Amino acid sequence: MAKGALTPRAEDFPRWYQEVIALAEMGENGPAAGTMVIRPWGYGIWELFQAELDRRIKEAGAENAYFPLLIPESFLRLEADHVEGFSPELAIVTHGGGKELEEPLVVRPTSETVVNSCFAKWVQSYRDLPLLINQWANVVRWELRPRLFLRTREFLWQEGHTAHASEAEARDYALLVLRTVYQAAMEEAAYIPVLTGHKTRRERFAGATRTWTCEGMMGDGKALQMGTSHELGQNFARAFGITFTNAEGAVEHAWQTSWGVSTRLIGALVMGHGDDCGLRLPPALAPVEVVVVLVKEDEGGRAVAEALVAQLRAAGHRVRLDDKTDTSFGRRSVGWEIRGVPVRVEIGPRDLAEGNVTVVTRHTRDKETLPLAGVAREVEAILARVGPELLAEAAASRAARTVDVDTLDDALAAGATGFARVPMTVIGDDGEDRLGAEAMSVRCLQRPDGSLARVDDDDADLVAVIGRSY
Amino acid sequence: MAKGALTPRAEDFPRWYQEVIALAEMGENGPAAGTMVIRPWGYGIWELFQAELDRRIKEAGAENAYFPLLIPESFLRLEADHVEGFSPELAIVTHGGGKELEEPLVVRPTSETVVNSCFAKWVQSYRDLPLLINQWANVVRWELRPRLFLRTREFLWQEGHTAHASEAEARDYALLVLRTVYQAAMEEAAYIPVLTGHKTRRERFAGATRTWTCEGMMGDGKALQMGTSHELGQNFARAFGITFTNAEGAVEHAWQTSWGVSTRLIGALVMGHGDDCGLRLPPALAPVEVVVVLVKEDEGGRAVAEALVAQLRAAGHRVRLDDKTDTSFGRRSVGWEIRGVPVRVEIGPRDLAEGNVTVVTRHTRDKETLPLAGVAREVEAILARVGPELLAEAAASRAARTVDVDTLDDALAAGATGFARVPMTVIGDDGEDRLGAEAMSVRCLQRPDGSLARVDDDDADLVAVIGRSY
Repeated sequence: MAKGALTPRAEDFPRWYQEVIALAEMGENGPAAGTMVIRPWGYGIWELFQAELDRRIKEAGAENAYFPLLIPESFLRLEADHVEGFSPELAIVTHGGGKELEEPLVVRPTSETVVNSCFAKWVQSYRDLPLLINQWANVVRWELRPRLFLRTREFLWQEGHTAHASEAEARDYALLVLRTVYQAAMEEAAYIPVLTGHKTRRERFAGATRTWTCEGMMGDGKALQMGTSHELGQNFARAFGITFTNAEGAVEHAWQTSWGVSTRLIGALVMGHGDDCGLRLPPALAPVEVVVVLVKEDEGGRAVAEALVAQLRAAGHRVRLDDKTDTSFGRRSVGWEIRGVPVRVEIGPRDLAEGNVTVVTRHTRDKETLPLAGVAREVEAILARVGPELLAEAAASRAARTVDVDTLDDALAAGATGFARVPMTVIGDDGEDRLGAEAMSVRCLQRPDGSLARVDDDDADLVAVIGRSY
Repeated sequence: MAKGALTPRAEDFPRWYQEVIALAEMGENGPAAGTMVIRPWGYGIWELFQAELDRRIKEAGAENAYFPLLIPESFLRLEADHVEGFSPELAIVTHGGGKELEEPLVVRPTSETVVNSCFAKWVQSYRDLPLLINQWANVVRWELRPRLFLRTREFLWQEGHTAHASEAEARDYALLVLRTVYQAAMEEAAYIPVLTGHKTRRERFAGATRTWTCEGMMGDGKALQMGTSHELGQNFARAFGITFTNAEGAVEHAWQTSWGVSTRLIGALVMGHGDDCGLRLPPALAPVEVVVVLVKEDEGGRAVAEALVAQLRAAGHRVRLDDKTDTSFGRRSVGWEIRGVPVRVEIGPRDLAEGNVTVVTRHTRDKETLPLAGVAREVEAILARVGPELLAEAAASRAARTVDVDTLDDALAAGATGFARVPMTVIGDDGEDRLGAEAMSVRCLQRPDGSLARVDDDDADLVAVIGRSY
């Protein structure tokens, strides 16, 4: 039914993506090139994702704080890899209050420098460690090929910054966040399966000693880097002078991590679960889990609709009553479908005359006529199924497009439509050049069984996952 | 006990304020002049305030969205009063991605211009109205005399933006927000009494036809503007072309409002309730409502402390166990006192030997030794009292420093230590100049009984509240 409105994914995936974002009223371009307006439907998804992540971040022991948007340009230069990585992407404030500034200010592309200038003051003794801080904020990076939610010149994110007394503790924390915050939120709230592993030296965060990543496969077989957790070693601690007196009275530099996910996750939901009729949201991240649609304005129908809304709200669900009967029923149905609302209950006079309502399950597009009496229970049963079924579907799709290969040529061939797993020994630095030339890259390194590498693992014993990416 | 640590308020109120912010670890200056770092204790208060406001904003029917930080400079010029008001305060981005920009970008000082450029696209028909949008965001204004939380070059806030089909509907909405969101959150969560009224023409928001305000009195008798709700008339609708087809098919410009509160509210809590021992938080906005302090490390004490923490958490309270027994008990107690935690339960071996614990109520500084058995119930009883007692105390203090006068000279005298209420007829434009010369201003206009002016009230029948302000 909604099919006509959208370009089919198989025909033009990027165009389908843009159309979903626009028609679902999730976002649009801002007036300054590369910037983004997040409309209420997109922002509603973000609020739910934020709440889920924030809860998990707090469970991991971190506290929220806020650091300034504007950073003296000289701060960025203090860590050599970091400035090299970010310099091409910076937005610079040169004037404030009608005057030229003595020192230009950088609009933060990430906050390592300003956070660590604070950490240097806050950390004195081993008793001050670990220091576990998170920030929800906007950042600006001058992207050359902006795309809504995936790559915009300003985006919203959280960035965690921590300091620890030992390298092992810092690594454990980076992995705790990777698993219990990121992977868990992606798989248990967004229901998008992710591969976890670490990046090659070339793909690492600027200033990190190791970057751990969560990689999802989108509907077109491309990878999306959905979240990263970095071990920073003592690089920033040396640059900013973050030292502590240990229990024995000796002064050491702290070991650090940083980690972030962004509004890009909204793009992941669109591309990870969307079908040719639009978005398909898991209930946990749906601003509206159930929409009750009054087909026509009539007293009996309205009373039934309002009672059902009340019943489902009392059970703790986010429910919307759509009684805009001055807009055509078909148009409203297509609208809710494009927006990905998991369950739609249609209440119309013909069904109701027989004591029935119609229940439409978005992710399967099943449509059932059911007795009104048990419909709330049925809706709850459907809601419980949506997430796990979306996860299973995405996992099956990923498995069907992932192959194990032994040569770089085979990896290049398979990587063009999905993921290729190839021994790291086959790649080397030259291999990454060849991949780059074909718009592919090593998405992550893993053990052959898909688990994370341990400290003492040799790169030669690892498998590289190869694919195109956003 | 903590008194020694802080400058008494009566001696030097601004210094006391700075010391509380620093010692309670609420915030500090950022590296770029005028910017602010909000530390976890300050940010924890903000998160609770945000949640309270966000809930009320949603109850008022508004949805959250997000608009870009960077705005083309030309947009600011579209509304004449607006650009005049904000031009001196702008931060300007002139370079991005290593190149000079063709058009400089303004770092938003407020988002009327960018929001209304979107509204012009989103609003077509009377069916699209009212359009009720809120944004949580950072904004930048080049303040010349920055002070933490009160006036910083970057601050966090929410800004609501709405469009309506008629002037009356817009006014009603501006007042709905003033009363049910702002005044209610200030008086029922922060427990700070506020005067409400409207601003004189001189004190109005740049671009508004009427500015409604909530004004609190701080501990030194000065006013703090805590939140404003503006009627914008059709000013921005004309500048940005926000038109709709009404039910009769005619095209009209929309009527608008905007409204905001900021991290300044954190400063209000410090100055509104703080005493010579530090902050005094109402439980609703306390990151920790109850701290259970283990005086010494011993098995029996720890078991009792942990059980009490569990019991109070199960009752839905935010409770912290302080078992850092390697730091002196006195230092920890003073720390919690400065941070304003409403209730402190001290668990020590001497009390415990007699089956007792010590309960300290922060806002009264009452200290009681109580039987362990009923202590959770007693703590809950105290928590229920804190907010209303803080409100009553602040209201009594305000009443004691507010006088009704009949001449400008008397108003100038009384305004030096508190609020003076004087007939608006006594003021006029000259009067506002004289007030300004004495660092005073009209904080708001009200009816003589303290209620809000109605549309048809004459300024001559109103009372002006006069005071110094932050």
